[in-house]
Formats: sequence, C-alpha cells, structure tokens
Amino acid sequence: MDGSVGVGGRGPLDEERKGAEMDVDAVMALLAGSPEVVEKRRQIRRVIEADEVMSVDDYYFCDRTRRYERALEKTVRFVQLVRMHGWKDQDAIYARRCIREQLPVGLHWAMFIPCIKGQGTKEQQAKWLPLAETMQIVGTYAQTELGHGTFLRGLETTATYDPATESFILNSPTLTSTKWWPGSLGKTATHCVVMARLITKGRDYGTHAFIVQIRDLDTHRPLKGITVGDIGPKFGYDSMDNGFLRFDSVAIPRAHLLSRYAKVAVDGSYSKPLNTKLSYGTMIFVRSHMIMDAALHLKAATTIAVRYGAVRRQSLMDETDTTESKILDYTVQQETLFELLGAAFAFHFAGRILSDLYHRLQASLSSNDLSLLSYTHGTTSGLKAYCSTITSEGIEACRRCCGGHGYSKFSGLPDLYTDYVPACTYEGENVVMYLQCARYLLKMVAAIEQKDPVPSDLAYLGDRSLAAAARKLTSTHGVKNLDNLLLILRAIAVVRIMEAHGALISAQQRYATSGRAWNACAPVLMKAAQAHCRIMVFNYLLEGVRAAHLDDKTHGVLVSLTRFYGLRLASYDVVETDVLTRQAIANMKQAAEDERTVIRRNAVALVDAFDLSDFFLNSALGRADGRVYEALYEYAQKEPMNQHEVSPAVEQHLLPLMQTTRRIFGGQSKL
Amino acid sequence: MDGSVGVGGRGPLDEERKGAEMDVDAVMALLAGSPEVVEKRRQIRRVIEADEVMSVDDYYFCDRTRRYERALEKTVRFVQLVRMHGWKDQDAIYARRCIREQLPVGLHWAMFIPCIKGQGTKEQQAKWLPLAETMQIVGTYAQTELGHGTFLRGLETTATYDPATESFILNSPTLTSTKWWPGSLGKTATHCVVMARLITKGRDYGTHAFIVQIRDLDTHRPLKGITVGDIGPKFGYDSMDNGFLRFDSVAIPRAHLLSRYAKVAVDGSYSKPLNTKLSYGTMIFVRSHMIMDAALHLKAATTIAVRYGAVRRQSLMDETDTTESKILDYTVQQETLFELLGAAFAFHFAGRILSDLYHRLQASLSSNDLSLLSYTHGTTSGLKAYCSTITSEGIEACRRCCGGHGYSKFSGLPDLYTDYVPACTYEGENVVMYLQCARYLLKMVAAIEQKDPVPSDLAYLGDRSLAAAARKLTSTHGVKNLDNLLLILRAIAVVRIMEAHGALISAQQRYATSGRAWNACAPVLMKAAQAHCRIMVFNYLLEGVRAAHLDDKTHGVLVSLTRFYGLRLASYDVVETDVLTRQAIANMKQAAEDERTVIRRNAVALVDAFDLSDFFLNSALGRADGRVYEALYEYAQKEPMNQHEVSPAVEQHLLPLMQTTRRIFGGQSKL
Ligand SMILES: Cc1cc2nc3c(=O)[nH]c(=O)nc-3n(C[C@H](O)[C@H](O)[C@H](O)COP(=O)(O)OP(=O)(O)OC[C@H]3O[C@@H](n4cnc5c(N)ncnc54)[C@H](O)[C@@H]3O)c2cc1C
Ligand SMILES: Cc1cc2nc3c(=O)[nH]c(=O)nc-3n(C[C@H](O)[C@H](O)[C@H](O)COP(=O)(O)OP(=O)(O)OC[C@H]3O[C@@H](n4cnc5c(N)ncnc54)[C@H](O)[C@@H]3O)c2cc1C
Repeated sequence: MDGSVGVGGRGPLDEERKGAEMDVDAVMALLAGSPEVVEKRRQIRRVIEADEVMSVDDYYFCDRTRRYERALEKTVRFVQLVRMHGWKDQDAIYARRCIREQLPVGLHWAMFIPCIKGQGTKEQQAKWLPLAETMQIVGTYAQTELGHGTFLRGLETTATYDPATESFILNSPTLTSTKWWPGSLGKTATHCVVMARLITKGRDYGTHAFIVQIRDLDTHRPLKGITVGDIGPKFGYDSMDNGFLRFDSVAIPRAHLLSRYAKVAVDGSYSKPLNTKLSYGTMIFVRSHMIMDAALHLKAATTIAVRYGAVRRQSLMDETDTTESKILDYTVQQETLFELLGAAFAFHFAGRILSDLYHRLQASLSSNDLSLLSYTHGTTSGLKAYCSTITSEGIEACRRCCGGHGYSKFSGLPDLYTDYVPACTYEGENVVMYLQCARYLLKMVAAIEQKDPVPSDLAYLGDRSLAAAARKLTSTHGVKNLDNLLLILRAIAVVRIMEAHGALISAQQRYATSGRAWNACAPVLMKAAQAHCRIMVFNYLLEGVRAAHLDDKTHGVLVSLTRFYGLRLASYDVVETDVLTRQAIANMKQAAEDERTVIRRNAVALVDAFDLSDFFLNSALGRADGRVYEALYEYAQKEPMNQHEVSPAVEQHLLPLMQTTRRIFGGQSKL
Repeated sequence: MDGSVGVGGRGPLDEERKGAEMDVDAVMALLAGSPEVVEKRRQIRRVIEADEVMSVDDYYFCDRTRRYERALEKTVRFVQLVRMHGWKDQDAIYARRCIREQLPVGLHWAMFIPCIKGQGTKEQQAKWLPLAETMQIVGTYAQTELGHGTFLRGLETTATYDPATESFILNSPTLTSTKWWPGSLGKTATHCVVMARLITKGRDYGTHAFIVQIRDLDTHRPLKGITVGDIGPKFGYDSMDNGFLRFDSVAIPRAHLLSRYAKVAVDGSYSKPLNTKLSYGTMIFVRSHMIMDAALHLKAATTIAVRYGAVRRQSLMDETDTTESKILDYTVQQETLFELLGAAFAFHFAGRILSDLYHRLQASLSSNDLSLLSYTHGTTSGLKAYCSTITSEGIEACRRCCGGHGYSKFSGLPDLYTDYVPACTYEGENVVMYLQCARYLLKMVAAIEQKDPVPSDLAYLGDRSLAAAARKLTSTHGVKNLDNLLLILRAIAVVRIMEAHGALISAQQRYATSGRAWNACAPVLMKAAQAHCRIMVFNYLLEGVRAAHLDDKTHGVLVSLTRFYGLRLASYDVVETDVLTRQAIANMKQAAEDERTVIRRNAVALVDAFDLSDFFLNSALGRADGRVYEALYEYAQKEPMNQHEVSPAVEQHLLPLMQTTRRIFGGQSKL
C-alpha cells in the first residue's frame, strides 16, 4: 500500500516550502518576541510533549467522564512539572497552553486567585493566596445563575449579615437563583468566590464577592447546606466540570466578604466603595488574554486548513490539465483563508498591545487617574466581541474548506470550534459588548461636537477632511497604499457611526423612552461598532508589521498580507457607505487579486511561522509533514468500535432480525 | 423551591399564545397538507414516543459506542413497529423522522435500495429488492474515497473483468483509493453498491456501480479480501458508523454490475449507456429531501430559540422599567430569528414544490424528454447549497440567541447543528454546487442573447424593463408590495448575474485557459447564484402563502412574514447592486420594522404551528410549556458525573496533591 500515490511525492509540502520567499524563522521570532523566546518555548514544549501523562493519543476517544479524569490527571502532572522545572509566569502560562485541554482547575488560576488579588484586603490576601497558590484549596468564580448572566443586578443569591454570629448567611431563594455555569464548580473546587446580594440591617446593597468553602478538604464531600453538581454535557468543554450550586442557610464568617472596596462592620453597618470602577482593571486583563486566545485558535485553524489545502488535490481546473489542482488554488478558498490568516496576525498584535495597555491602565489607576478607563473599556468591549466572532466563524470556515475530512474529529477542527465558541458568550455576550462599544463611540461623537478632548484613536471621528480624501483615491496604487487603507476604513466608520447617531436621534422622536429608542437602533449600532473594530485590528497589524525588523523579501510578504487584509476589511462596507468612487472600488478588487498571488506562494510558510506543533494541533490534516491520508487511516484504527471485528450491538440487535427473516425466506449466507 | 419565580407565572408562554391573532391549527394543517394529516401524524408519533426502546432520556449521556448500539436497537424496533402498524410510504417516512437519530441503516433505505431501483435491470431488481426490503441484507452506497469526493472521475478503486471466471476483481490499488465516509459501512452493512472503475479488455471505462457483499450473513465477519471498519469520531453523527473499506482481489459475479445502462458481455465486451443523464432523476429526488430536511432543522431551531426568547427575561430595557425584558423583545434577536422563521416556511414550500418537480421530471424522462433536466439540475444545485448554508448558520445563530444556556447540550441546539452541518458537504459540496448553478445561469444569459427559449423562471434575465421598474419604486407601500419585492430580488439578481458574465469575459482575456478564468471569477459567480436562489426561495414562500385558504387574520400574519422575509432577502444586495433609490431603501427598512411588530406578536404561535413535539425537540429550552429552568435542573441531575458525590477522579488525582501540600503547610479541613 503506497501512501504517496495521488498526493505528489513523499513530502507533499516540500514544494510549498521551497517556493516561499519569506524567512520563516524570522517571522517566528517576530511573533514570539525574539529567537530566544522561540527556543525557550521549544524546550518547555518538549518537556510537556514527552510526558506520558500528557499524551493526546486517547483524546478523540474518551467520553466526558474519562476526559474529566484525564484532564485532572494532566493538571496534577502539570503542577508537578512546573515545580520540577521552576517555570514562572510566562513560562508557566506557555507550558499550560501546550496541553491544549480545558483543565478542571482553570478557573482557579484565571479567576479565583485574580479575584482575591484584586478585591481582597491585604489581610485576606495574606490568608488566602498562599493556600490557593500551593493548591491546598482549589477555587472558582461563581457569578452566573440559572436566571441571570448578562444582567448582574438581577442576581438573586443572598448573603444576609447576622450580627449575633458575625456571619453572613447564604441562601438560594428561588430555582433561578441557582448558580449555573461556573467552570471547575461541579466536581473539583473546594472554594468559590460567590457573587451574592449583600443584605445587612434590612437593606439590600446589591451584589458583592464572598469567599465560600463548599467542600470538606479531607473528604471532598459538599458541606452542610450546599447542593453542588455538574450541569451536564455541553457543545464542547468536555473536560470541564461547569457546575451548579445552591445554598441552604450556609454561614460564612464576616471576614469572607472580599473587602478591598466595600466593608461591613461587626454591628452590620455598611461602608461603600470609593470607586467601583477600580475593579475594571481585571476585566481588561481578561480581555487581553481572550484576544490572544482568539489569535491562537485562529492560528491553529488556519494552519490546518492551509496545510491540508496544499496537500489535497481535487478536480481538474481545466479539462486539459494532467494533474488535479491543489484545493488551495481555488479562489474561494484563498479569499476565505488568507483573510483569516491576516486576522490571525492582527489579533496576535492586538493581544500584545492590549496587554501593554492593561499595564499602563494599572499604573494610572493606582495613581487615581481614571482617564484611560472609559477608553479602554469602550474599545475593548468591541474588540472582545469582534475577535471572538471572527475567530469562531473563521474556525468553521476553515473546517468547511477541508470538505468531508473536516467533519472528522481527527481534523482537529470540530473540537477547536466547540471549545472556542463560548468565548462569544462568556465574559460579556457579544451583542451586549458591541452595544457597549457603540455607546462609547457615540459619546465620543458628542464630545467632539462639544469640542471636548477625545483619545487620539478616536480623533478621526472629528476629521472633516476624511471624506474628501477618500473620494480622491482612484488608482490601484492609491487604494492599496497602507495609510490610505487606514483612511478608507476610517471614512467607512465615520459614515457608519454618524448613521447610528442619526438613527438614534430620529428613534428618540418615535419611541416613548430612550431605552426603547436605543433598542430599535441596535442593528445599526452594531454595524457602527464593527466598523470601528476593523480600524483597530487593521491598525494593530499595520503597527506590528511596520515595527518589525525583517529582510526585504520577508517584510514584503507581511506587507502583502496586511494589504490584502485591509482590502478585505474595507470590502465589507465600502459600497454601502459610498466613500469611494466606483473606479477606486474596482481597483481595490484588482489589488486584492495581486496580493493573493503573493500570499499563495507563502501560505504554508506563513502558517509554519505560527510554530504550532503536531502534538498541539492533534490534527490528521494539519500535520507538518503533510501525510494526511496516512494519518487519517492510522487514527481510525484506534476507534473503540474497531476493537471488535463484529460489533456486539449488531450481534445483539441486527443479526437476529436479519436471520429470522432469512430463515422465513430460506436465503443463503453468501449471495 | 418555587420554579415559577422570576419567569412570570406558571405557564410562561400562556400570555404569548393569548396575544397571538393567528389560528395555529389552520397553519399547522396548511403545512402538513390537511387537518387529517396532522391527526394521522399525531397517531404515529404517539406510538413512537410511547415505546420504551425509543426513549430519548439517555440521549445526551451516551458515548459513541452506546449511541450506535441504541440506534441499532431503535432501528430494529422501528422495523417491527412499521410491520405491526402496517405503515407505508409517507407514514413510514414520518415515523422514521420522529425518532430523530441517524439510524445506522439509514443509507440502506436512502441510497442502497434507490440505487438498485434506478440502475439495476429488471432481473437485478427481482433478485436484490426482496432481500433488501425484507432486511435479509443491509446495504449502503460506497462512492467517496480517502482521496476523492467531489471529483468522481478521480476515484481509484478498480473492478477488472476476468472472462475466465466471468467475474469482476475488485482492488484498492492505493491508500487514497480506500473507500471512506459511507454511512452504515463501518459495522452494519452486509452489502454495498460500490463505485469502481470498470476495466475490461485492457480498457478503463470509468466508474460504474457494482453490488458487493462485504460481510458473511451468518457470522457478520468481513469476507476474504475485505478490510472494513469505522472511520472514528466526527463532529456529529455519533450513532452512524461511517466506514472505510479496502479490496484485495475480491471477486464478484459479472451479474453484480448494475446494468440498466452499461453492460459487459460474457467475453468482456462493453456496451455503453444510451444516456448517462437518465440517472440524474435520483439526484433531484435526494435534493428535494435535503431541502425538506433543511426546513425541518430550521423549524426545530427556531422553535427552541423563539420559545426560550419569550420565556427568558434579561436586563431592563429602560432604567425605569420594573420588569426585565423578554430577550425576544431585543431587536437584534428579532431580526435574526424572524428572518429564519421566514426561511423555515420558505424551505418547507420549496421542498414540497421540488418533490412535485421530481415527479414531473421522472414522467418526462421516461418519455425520453430531457428538456426539464438541465433546468432542474442547474437550479436545484443552487438551492441545495443555499438552503443547507442558511440552515446551518441559522441553527448556530439560534443557539447564540440563547446565550449561555444555548451552549448546553440540553438546549438541543448543539446536536441539531453538528448533525445537520455535513449537509453543506455531502451530496455535492456547497461551493461546487453554487458554481454549477452559476454555470447554468450564464448559459441562460447566452441563450437569451441568442434569442433561444429559456424556462419561464429564468425569463426575468431578459426582461429589460426590470431596472426601470425597480427605480420607480419609492413609497413604503411600493417597496413592501409582494410582487414588487419579487421584482426587486430579480433586479438585484440581474445585476449580479450580469456582473458575473462581465467578469468572466474580462477574465478570459487575462487568463491562459477558460478553467483558470472561471476560477478567478468564482467569488462573483457565487454571488450571482445566491441572488438567484433568493428569488427562488422567496417565490416558493409567496406561492405557498398565496395558495393557502386561511382566515384574514391568519393570512395577514403569513403575509407579514413573507414581506419581512422578502425585505430581508433584498437587504443583502440592494445597496451594492444599486437597483433602488436611497429613499426606497430607507422605506424598506421602515417597512421591515412594521412587519417585525406583527411577527413578534405571533412568533410563538408561528413556531407552535410547526407541530414539533417535546420528544422530538428534546430541548430544555424549547419545551412547549416554557418551564425551561425546571427542565435544565432536572436534566442535569441525570449527568453520569453526578452519580458520585465525590468524583473518583478527584479522589485518585487531586486529593493526594492537595493533601500532601496541606500536610507540609499544616492546614485544616474547614477554613
Ligand atoms: C462555557 C461557559 C463557561 C462559563 N463559565 C462561567 C464561569 O466560570 N463563571 C460564571 O459565573 N459564569 C460562567 N459562564 C456564564 C456566562 O458568563 C454567561 O452565559 C454569559 O454572561 C451570558 O449570559 P446569559 O447566559 O445570561 O445570556 P443572556 O443574557 O440570557 O443572553 C441571551 C440573549 O439575550 C440577548 N440579550 C441579553 N441582554 C441584552 C440586552 N441588554 N440587549 C440586547 N440583547 C440582550 C443576548 O444578546 C443573547 O443573545 C459560562 C458560560 C459558558 C457558556
Ligand atoms: C457526514 C458525512 C456523510 C457522508 N456519507 C457518505 C456516503 O454515505 N457515501 C459516500 O460515498 N460519501 C459520503 N460522504 C462523503 C461526501 O460525499 C464528500 O465528503 C463530499 O462529496 C465532498 O467531497 P470531498 O470530501 O472530497 O471534498 P473536497 O472535494 O476535497 O473539497 C475540499 C474543498 O475543496 C473545494 N473544491 C473541491 N473541488 C473544487 C472545485 N472544482 N472548484 C472549487 N472548489 C473546489 C471545496 O469547495 C471544498 O472546500 C459523507 C461525508 C460526510 C461528511
């Protein structure tokens, strides 16, 4: 059986790699930060990938219970490896990411510890952080309830202060108040940060964060008054025990209210926080991580689809052709995949810049300067929604580009999608996020009208020369110039945002209340926010590529990708907003076609530069060596149903039916 | 624990049903065909749903092996029920559909039997059909190989005629020639229709269909020379044993070549088919079923999202509101869901009309009239791609409308998506299908240019008055008129199709070959095909609603839905194609807003009219009684991981880690 027949030689991707003009190592170093980081990461990766416990061989064949068990086993091994190798901070985070499995203690690191750091007093931190960091306890963050996710003020869990015992009594007064969804809650966590309504002296002060122990540390049994369990199977996240939790008069010490901002005295008197917005810092931190995560998922999906597209041959492009075309040579695939490649690079740089912004924000907040806050909040809510939407849809688009084999779990793409897509919902549902971004943009429009200062990124909203400048662009050369692409995206956004502004004013006349007017305009508001998001992501990519030190050829490839990406981003709204001449639009199409050719030659090299290992991708189609058919065949042999030549289910159910009928008709066993 | 708190009374959907002005029963009868059919179906449904074997209680908790086993058990029970109750044709099909599980013998009925009917001689039919219909054998259809799906001429399996033994010898000469994907093949089927290259007297005549036995009927063991198995886990289709198959010199009698069209004589001489297009009838049959299936899935998804949207309350629309809004009152949800509601109705009527068309086609083919063939083929390839794309994306959109709970498998939406989405890939990959439709449309343009006759549905392509008529529309009244909406959709399609025509001519000058020029234009060609598909689906809905006998109020609701749907369909391309004045476009938006209000009042009634049972939906969110929170809570208790208070995995892996650390630090069990 000769595996190479029909796929063009032993290393089907060799010819692609030889044909590329860019320096893969240089782009790899650019993305990682430096060649040293690339090397460091490879060392870490080798440790994880060589470890038997970390094996992904059984990944596609485990049911939920087993996936949870394996993930817990990996968690423990991970903690041991971190200790053994002394990995800190970025290195530990990178090591964690190599595992590519939702670890059931994920929320412990991502939410429980950060919450205590952000909202606990010095004393609380001193008590809880050592316990958490050494994993004597495992915590999670329980906010969402059956009845409320988006609308936090609607949460129903109560924490009523009892001065007699100096404790808070937690209750779940209704079915809908049941905590529902928190990760690590169902079976793993011993502790939670619980969001509950603080009630003292008969008054309800709204939701506050409390530390609550839910399981005994010796037996791991739920404590008295606690009902806790797993919420059942989901689209993805098989290894995560998203849970439910109910309280029946559970008492916790007064000191378990996280009291950095709000406090309750021994007698039950409440003192309110100085500024509730101070806790927003954490949110920006989480968002910057979410955008890096979007980039990572998009890198993985495009790596798989591009490599497979360069191996898979299907159909004769012309009847006279003697070999079938690589599917990556079909235009529809290129338009889809290369735009997503651009997005993967753009989100990569966006994540990095947001992380810098977070640090600047923390610095300014700690000196009580709130000026950055609304800008950061307003723009990152849009970015969160934009990047997660594009990434989810992008993964699915990559999957469909792989035809039938994309539907196999072995392609890696189904799990990539189901594990990523909830990012559209958690940490702020995307529609709600876009609308928050739109609200901020309209505030900026108002500020400009009133000649108030606005952040430099928003200054374009007041630039009256934009429209005329865009109209003047006509030549192909003009429209593909990178600065002009930014100008076009801005001209488009101005139209979209002013449309929203106008729609809202007109709706306010037709609707009884401002909330209803706002709701009526929601679709237009979303378009406004999306148009601004496109400027942001394009700009991040542009800055990232401009700042890169690369040889000319390599730089040229990244410039082509940036151009193509900008041209595609503009194509969404350029006609509807009418900012360019028809000639200019036609020239944009031509320019995009030109860049596509350059990207095509370098497509495999570009995804190679993402430096994702075969272990991480766990994909028969995305393998670095391109031996996709061999891999599909080998993976299939491991399917549990293939462990019996004759399926026991067939013996039990089908054979009796067939044989009874056959006996009646007197048939034979070989026909 | 009072489940009703927070959801507004005991029957949260009562108020919606009371507020509707339409007659649900009348629309139900319209969709089913008559009140009698509704009643008949309910009888059948009750039988299936009352049967213990058919229970869906364990559905969300089974791993693949168990899902396959359960599905096989259900299959056998289904066959028994059909015999017991004497269900025939439509009734049997309906009964089958009530089970809502991919049965592992699905391909036996859907492909194996139809293939023998369509391509077998009288004698072959007489031999095989009784065996198949009584289930003495179970067959499937094995076409796709590891290396080839779309490009059938590339299939590599060989069937070489040996006159000495009067048999064909089947071989899988390469790895890529391995049959891969056929449903029912892995573990269930005893026989296949295999597509293989017919080679006789040293000449290769291309792919032909052969009947091949693969497993012994007594032992169910694979026969000599056969390697067969399951291809492993997929995105969905858990209960289906999609399989692989390899041949090592497997001999089958000469009579096993399905010989209705092509024949091989005893001496090996080949006689070729009169007209290969005759077998296209089956393809149209399959497509009409696929479109009904699209309608069914979209009905299920919208039922779930609309009902949940009318129960779920989240956020205050205005700060002064005293109750939270139902999420179905948010505009973004309405725009998404009501368009999909329109599509569900449209696809329903489309499926029915296509099925009529199939019968007309069969009649004309049997009288050797091929005139309908290219029309049917050209348009249904587009429809197949359009309906399956909209349905897949629509199910996901419904899921996201449900926020976090949509991500739970208990919502029903994840499985609805993963089981439906391969319809975008099988029976003709969608990109390829759109391009075939575009090719047909351009042929019609050429025919019109040459003053050749074209089918009446395509006559609009030659209607020179369309553009002017569209331009004249301005008033709200004008743009929302149903005939005018059809006119607008046609005007848009003409622009798109002529754009494609022009692009192709210009590309033919720039590219060396016509295939490469075609490929360069593929994105524009797809837009042209989509624009034509929108006309078709709108027209099917329009005809369906116009032909309905309903009271005025009910009719009015369906007209509102049709209008809203038409306005939304037009909105996709109306600005880019520049067929209307800006004023007209603004009026379209206003008109859509008006219709949305009508649909909102009747949304729950409209989905009630789909008549999908709670058993079928198997959705905690889509329940007819609206008790979504109770259902989520109850479903979760059945999760296998909840059967242990303390997870064995935690005891084995996590507790030791926590306790070791705690011992070192001297901690306590209650903090
Ligand atoms: C995999 C996963 C993991 C999670 N992990 C955690 C966790 O660890 N801890 C935790 O506390 N929670 C967790 N959650 C819950 C998550 O945070 C919520 O699901 C999320 O906040 C969305 O809220 P919701 O589910 O209430 O959606 P809803 O608010 O009910 O949204 C439903 C629909 O209504 C619309 N809508 C709602 N409000 C408005 C409005 N004002 N305007 C317009 N439209 C509106 C939305 O657009 C959406 O389409 C998780 C969820 C998932 C899926
Ligand atoms: C769930 C499921 C069930 C199935 N059941 C069966 C079955 O019972 N029996 C059976 O025989 N098969 C079955 N199949 C296989 C199915 O028919 C094929 O997957 C399908 O025909 C697509 O072919 P492919 O996988 O080769 O995709 P490819 O042709 O490899 O497509 C890959 C990509 O290339 C692009 N492409 C390919 N050719 C062209 C072109 N000429 N122009 C532009 N773009 C192009 C496509 O758009 C696609 O994006 C099943 C598949 C699935 C997923």
